[in-house]
Amino acid sequence: MAVKVLAEASPDEVRFAELQRRMAGVSQKMLSVTLQALCRDGLVSRRVEGTVPPRVYYGLTDLGLSLEVPLAAVRRWAEEHMAEIDRAQQLADTVTEDT
Amino acid sequence: MAVKVLAEASPDEVRFAELQRRMAGVSQKMLSVTLQALCRDGLVSRRVEGTVPPRVYYGLTDLGLSLEVPLAAVRRWAEEHMAEIDRAQQLADTVTEDT
Repeated sequence: MAVKVLAEASPDEVRFAELQRRMAGVSQKMLSVTLQALCRDGLVSRRVEGTVPPRVYYGLTDLGLSLEVPLAAVRRWAEEHMAEIDRAQQLADTVTEDT
Repeated sequence: MAVKVLAEASPDEVRFAELQRRMAGVSQKMLSVTLQALCRDGLVSRRVEGTVPPRVYYGLTDLGLSLEVPLAAVRRWAEEHMAEIDRAQQLADTVTEDT
C-alpha cells in the first residue's frame, strides 16, 4: 500500500504525515515500521531536510518503482475477485457452522 | 508458495505430505493453517477420500489458478532483484552500525 501511494506520487516525494493521510487506517507505528523495512530493502528512499523541526520525505527508488508493476497486477487481481472471495468465505463459514 | 506448488501440479491434485515435501522448511502447522485459509478464500479445493486412513487431496480452483499469473510476476521480480535487495540491506545495516 505504501509502495502504491509512493508510486502514484512518483517522481515526487511524500512527507510522512501525507503518506499516513493517504493510507486510511494505518497507524503511525505500522507506517513507520513499514517504511523502515522498505528503506532497508532499498525500495524506498528517505530524505531529511534540516529545518526545525526536520522534514522527512519518502520516495520510491528505481528498484521500488520496478516492483510496482507486478504489485499492481496482484492488486488488480484482488480488486477484480474481491466479491468472489467474499462469497467463498461466506459459503465456507456457513458450511462450518452447519457441521 | 503453496499456490505455486499447486499450480505446478495443476490440474492434478497433491496430498498434504507431498505438498509439505515440496515446500522445504514449512511446518505441518503452518501448511495446515495456510491451506485452511486458501480453501476458505475459494482458491484451493480440498477433497477427502474415504479410505482408512482418509487421504486428503488439495488442488487449485479456477480462482486460484487465475491468481497464479500475477503472483508469478511478483515471484519473478523477487528472484531477479534478490541480490540487489541483499546489497541494500547489508549497506543499510553497515550504516546503522556506524551511527
